[in-house]
Amino acid sequence: MSKPLVTKEEHKEFLDVFQILKKDILEAIGELNVSKEIFGWVRESIEVNIPGGKLTRGLTIYNTVKSLKIGFLSDQEKFEARVLGWCVEWLGSVYLVFDDVMDGGTIRRGHPCWYKCLNPLNRQVPIGNIAIFDGLILEECMYKILKKYFKHKAYYGDLVELIHDVNWKSYIGQLMDSDVSIFERGDFSEFTMTRFRQIMIYKTAYYTFYLPVVAGMLISGMELQYIESLDGLKDILIELGIFMNAQDDFFDSFSDPKITLKIGTDIEENKITWLICKALTMVNPDQLSLLKQHYGRTSPNDRAIVKKIYLEIGLEKEFRIYEDQTYLDIMKSIDTNEINIPKEILITILENCYKRVK
Amino acid sequence: MSKPLVTKEEHKEFLDVFQILKKDILEAIGELNVSKEIFGWVRESIEVNIPGGKLTRGLTIYNTVKSLKIGFLSDQEKFEARVLGWCVEWLGSVYLVFDDVMDGGTIRRGHPCWYKCLNPLNRQVPIGNIAIFDGLILEECMYKILKKYFKHKAYYGDLVELIHDVNWKSYIGQLMDSDVSIFERGDFSEFTMTRFRQIMIYKTAYYTFYLPVVAGMLISGMELQYIESLDGLKDILIELGIFMNAQDDFFDSFSDPKITLKIGTDIEENKITWLICKALTMVNPDQLSLLKQHYGRTSPNDRAIVKKIYLEIGLEKEFRIYEDQTYLDIMKSIDTNEINIPKEILITILENCYKRVK
Repeated sequence: MSKPLVTKEEHKEFLDVFQILKKDILEAIGELNVSKEIFGWVRESIEVNIPGGKLTRGLTIYNTVKSLKIGFLSDQEKFEARVLGWCVEWLGSVYLVFDDVMDGGTIRRGHPCWYKCLNPLNRQVPIGNIAIFDGLILEECMYKILKKYFKHKAYYGDLVELIHDVNWKSYIGQLMDSDVSIFERGDFSEFTMTRFRQIMIYKTAYYTFYLPVVAGMLISGMELQYIESLDGLKDILIELGIFMNAQDDFFDSFSDPKITLKIGTDIEENKITWLICKALTMVNPDQLSLLKQHYGRTSPNDRAIVKKIYLEIGLEKEFRIYEDQTYLDIMKSIDTNEINIPKEILITILENCYKRVK
Repeated sequence: MSKPLVTKEEHKEFLDVFQILKKDILEAIGELNVSKEIFGWVRESIEVNIPGGKLTRGLTIYNTVKSLKIGFLSDQEKFEARVLGWCVEWLGSVYLVFDDVMDGGTIRRGHPCWYKCLNPLNRQVPIGNIAIFDGLILEECMYKILKKYFKHKAYYGDLVELIHDVNWKSYIGQLMDSDVSIFERGDFSEFTMTRFRQIMIYKTAYYTFYLPVVAGMLISGMELQYIESLDGLKDILIELGIFMNAQDDFFDSFSDPKITLKIGTDIEENKITWLICKALTMVNPDQLSLLKQHYGRTSPNDRAIVKKIYLEIGLEKEFRIYEDQTYLDIMKSIDTNEINIPKEILITILENCYKRVK
């Protein structure tokens, strides 16, 4: 079993930093002399959307800095690593706000998706598409925080560009993922592991582990150009991101929403997931025909039939085999690669992905 | 009558630069090895969304640089002013993509709004909410262009931050504007000129003239801190932005869509416009009662009744009085202010707003 990413104390300290950043942002909004209604709206949007995740990405930055500066981590450096951790959490939360509007999501982090929440100024109607502007405002909040705490640093320009570059890739990935939803139901011609990997690389892998580790290295004093030249590092971080996403796909169909705190809709949305790509290589003609009829449709009955086929073909066991094999493969890559950073950074991420339950 | 912002030749040269920037972006997408479908999608999104506006903002940057460097404008400097002009056009177009999804717009720049266009991968369905990701991708395109052409400049960091700051204000403004749409119909308690101005300052004024002029000054060699300290300049640019928006409100209800290339929906959307704020100060009790019943409702009949009241109270004439008075007021501000830049920059903007027809 994996050890927790950080101690309970460190977890609490990480959460404390969020309160400071929230205060910073509310001060910045206060400076605009907006009405108290708009002020309250933005505050609610921050409080509902930003915390409440698993904090894996944010804590990964903190861990990266801690590993690199072992024994030499000042309180100021700890604080800055946490601030940047929250920036990455902020970014991930922004993606979710947009993603949920786009996908018509229902539950996120155990609560209604933001666009489904009641409008702060009129609790009779949902926020709806106004959530788009909330997402955009939250994104700008992150740049405000970056500016406040890192503007004087030599790496500031590189940091901002790293984030823009990851955004660029993530949004292209989200477009790839959305475009999938318009395929004709039952047309599985694009449902391959190759396609699954391509979508995941852009949509998830860059911001999930590549960004936190590279950003953590950057603020620890390494040059961005040097970090980016480490092909082995990038490959491993991308593989870790794909791995985490394959697990998310698994949870989407196989886990209890009470544990994952979201309701899976991949089957209904005709998504190219690890599960469906693998299933298509395992089914017999009758099962294939049923998948073609029922995958990507919205009734609970359709979902139940797809789920039944997943169970019949032993997809859960197959996933566990993939999980074990991928764990070993990535561990081997970490082991054999000549990367000039403490390997425990990568091993901690891997161990924390492996056998997780949400 | 106002003279054109630039000569026909300069206009063509400005458009030529767009082709170069489009090529840059398509190359950047090519580097991601995305499918030809996604490549084609992003190309279409750029071609449909970015050009086709009046180019006022983009040409204002060019004009600002030209005025500041009169006689000393190298071909390279001209090119850079145009590139930055397109960055501002790009940003404005991004706002429109989001705005149209949010507002449920129909026609923009003479074509269907992007989210209403047919999905490039499946022409049977509209793009719909996937347009959100297109907007986000287009926004990142702009940062890519900025990086490519300005990264080596001393003012690069300030330029990026200027844009983030304007985004921050514009998105807060768009939230203010959207939130309005949830007021109960007929509740005019917030429909005041003060409120109208506050929304317009944030939603429109900063990115319309403040950004182009300040960015133009910045790339002409002036320090951002110095430019930002010029209160008089900022006030005039904000007033010009509000003025332009009041005109847009007028066109929304009084102009021919064949000329404005968009279909006005302010009345239907219960927007706080210059027109309704002014009308509320002019109507008799019967007219007020009719406005309460019909403003912010979607049937053509409702719109016709509101429009009829606008005509009855002579709102068109009242607008012309406002237009003339504002022209004189702003001209006086320009005249009396001690601003250390050629005043013709501001006068050109004002002259081009005044008596425009779209």
